Amino acid sequence: MKKTLIMNGHFISTIKGKSSIKGCMVIEGDLITYIGEETPEPKENYDEIIDGTNKLYMPGLVNTHGHAAMSLLRGYGDDLALQIWLEEKMWPMEAKFTAQDVKWGTSLSILEMMKGGTTTFVDMYDHMNEVAKAVEASGMRGVLARGVIGLCPADVQTAKLIDATEFAKTWHGAANGRITTMMSPHAPYTCPPDYIERIVQAAHDLNLPIHTHMSETSREVQGNVDQYGLRPVAHLEKIGVFSRPTLVAHGVHLTDEEISVLQQYDVRVSHNPGSNLKLASGVARVPELLRAGVKVSLGTDGAASNNNLDMFEEMRLAALIHKGVSGDPLAVPAAEALLLGTKMGAESIWLDNVGLLQPGMKADFIALDIDQPHFLPKTDFVSHVVYSACAKDVVDVCVDGNWIVRKGECLTMDEEKIKREFELCFDRLIG
Amino acid sequence: MKKTLIMNGHFISTIKGKSSIKGCMVIEGDLITYIGEETPEPKENYDEIIDGTNKLYMPGLVNTHGHAAMSLLRGYGDDLALQIWLEEKMWPMEAKFTAQDVKWGTSLSILEMMKGGTTTFVDMYDHMNEVAKAVEASGMRGVLARGVIGLCPADVQTAKLIDATEFAKTWHGAANGRITTMMSPHAPYTCPPDYIERIVQAAHDLNLPIHTHMSETSREVQGNVDQYGLRPVAHLEKIGVFSRPTLVAHGVHLTDEEISVLQQYDVRVSHNPGSNLKLASGVARVPELLRAGVKVSLGTDGAASNNNLDMFEEMRLAALIHKGVSGDPLAVPAAEALLLGTKMGAESIWLDNVGLLQPGMKADFIALDIDQPHFLPKTDFVSHVVYSACAKDVVDVCVDGNWIVRKGECLTMDEEKIKREFELCFDRLIG
Repeated sequence: MKKTLIMNGHFISTIKGKSSIKGCMVIEGDLITYIGEETPEPKENYDEIIDGTNKLYMPGLVNTHGHAAMSLLRGYGDDLALQIWLEEKMWPMEAKFTAQDVKWGTSLSILEMMKGGTTTFVDMYDHMNEVAKAVEASGMRGVLARGVIGLCPADVQTAKLIDATEFAKTWHGAANGRITTMMSPHAPYTCPPDYIERIVQAAHDLNLPIHTHMSETSREVQGNVDQYGLRPVAHLEKIGVFSRPTLVAHGVHLTDEEISVLQQYDVRVSHNPGSNLKLASGVARVPELLRAGVKVSLGTDGAASNNNLDMFEEMRLAALIHKGVSGDPLAVPAAEALLLGTKMGAESIWLDNVGLLQPGMKADFIALDIDQPHFLPKTDFVSHVVYSACAKDVVDVCVDGNWIVRKGECLTMDEEKIKREFELCFDRLIG
Repeated sequence: MKKTLIMNGHFISTIKGKSSIKGCMVIEGDLITYIGEETPEPKENYDEIIDGTNKLYMPGLVNTHGHAAMSLLRGYGDDLALQIWLEEKMWPMEAKFTAQDVKWGTSLSILEMMKGGTTTFVDMYDHMNEVAKAVEASGMRGVLARGVIGLCPADVQTAKLIDATEFAKTWHGAANGRITTMMSPHAPYTCPPDYIERIVQAAHDLNLPIHTHMSETSREVQGNVDQYGLRPVAHLEKIGVFSRPTLVAHGVHLTDEEISVLQQYDVRVSHNPGSNLKLASGVARVPELLRAGVKVSLGTDGAASNNNLDMFEEMRLAALIHKGVSGDPLAVPAAEALLLGTKMGAESIWLDNVGLLQPGMKADFIALDIDQPHFLPKTDFVSHVVYSACAKDVVDVCVDGNWIVRKGECLTMDEEKIKREFELCFDRLIG
């Protein structure tokens, strides 16, 4: 088994206490086996020795909500309200998407994410075989679900459910375990209750979690009350969604009581601050969710509503916006924002062995070039990562013990080909 | 006079209408003399021809509020309320700052700013001769003021005022006009009214504008009412500040009536969204200020409260946060955020010939590398600049017709020496 030593680096190995150490990390196969200030064994015992001078090593970022293929719609229909943006801009264009579009749109997003330090991402979309194949080829970790919209005839509903189930069965545990799957009703407002119940039953049968959008806008909440007499949380609870392990995206409009329900069922919330701000959906009650003990993580959402896939920016937004809006300068401090983007992200998608640089954890980590003005003085690197860094500071990325980015270059995919094919897809879609 | 042609580039030349053109730009001396789709003259007429393929040219960014030397305090005392942060963390450390510290702290910030696409910045600090010398050496444009705090004996007040006046006189119009100066009482809560009046009189005598902090926190507003019986706007109006052209930083806590007063006096507001969020000061009423016709621009503030000097991030925050907080997805659209960071920034500091790529304007512009996933598809570059770009996408920077950054490398200052000297200063300050 290959044994690699990284020396002379700065490492964010634990979030509490001392924010980083200067020292060494050892990787054996797909695992981290040592982290500390001293070199644990003579140098001749290692197959590879890497000089980590002027590099900051930290856990890879975990993006818990997105639609990667939507990079094809980046900048298309900005500055609109969510429902109009969705119904008049996104859905008509997405209706034209073929498997090829999903392949190249997703590949471009994977490139952007991996080069920017994201090592794991959640994807909810259509043509998911293409997404899974791209994840497999990229070397990233993916938690994938065929998102189904149930506003269609019964036979189409059934066909979509079969597609989602087949996908989930086929790919769960694939790519050396780098791919896991979920079942995903798109949202309570796009799926009739009986259809959601069938999806939940399928998730029970397959022993898989559920991922859905929930309580993203006040209009959605009101619509749910109008249609079903319940707010989305009570509605989803009633039809049994929370009987499965569940990850909801957004959770912007929540009452204290709803937060308490989410905590009771251990429902995890993917906070998407960039997307929620851009679509004017509002500001999620993240400090309250965290205080209640709900697992919160961070997602970029699709590039059409963000418009990049920079998880450093989501950590920074999470650290900044809740301070500004609540008036509490201690809301979501830097160390907590970093946890949301790493360890809590991993836990939110049922990955207990990634998101932290510790012996026994998977070797999913990234290195940032800290020989730059915005990383000086070399004091609190947790602060610098959250308040000062960006995706483009990332130079090296390792997932499952394999390097997928070195010196800023992607080692696993053909970047030029992806950009070219992406532009051809876009030209055809817009034409 | 040197004549340069840039061909095959994308250019953001006007903010309204078509968001960018593909074509050419001509620079003669320190001016832009042509921009358009066709090459205006045969190629042999140019001294230099630059291939702009895969580059997006746009006006250099204008940072209208900051304290560059505070990069020495980046990450020092995060996650605290403004007054505690200021009184218990910043001021005791700043009291130790020597001219050398200001020299190297400022130089590091200038490096970060120029490499990140900022071509003009406002600085309010002490030891301003060092700041002006660094601006001169860097090739950037600076609007500089010796910020004075009047909480001191009369003789010290007088000495500071003389220092500020001498500085403003000496440097106004220096470095081929790249440096202009202002007079700067630090804030209504740090300067007694009679002292502010003396500073205003000096500004009258020198025919210079005023720059001050104002209405940054609700605590400051309440303190002003408690001490002087007036909110800060009425207080500054009463003691004659607005009789001079004035730029105020922050302006977070403003009533409708105060906004109207600012509009009447044509007082300009530097909006610092990152700093205001981080210090939990609140969210400025930017949509209302803009609707009232107040000139709003963007500032990073010092690195201690931001914590980087990335003006792309300030544009993005301005475009995002006002949507999320107001619930209006049309608040501060991308084109408006870009104006705040460029043309309106320049106008806010009385520079009428920078901030726009148009014939007759100063050749202050930057180029971004757009051959990257987050700039695809190549549709709306104004959207991509505001919602997707970051400082590190900048590859070339030109100010006053001179290249100061090419291919990401600073041409005018010794980056390695600056980083080294900066760290020595920090070690001494913290030791």
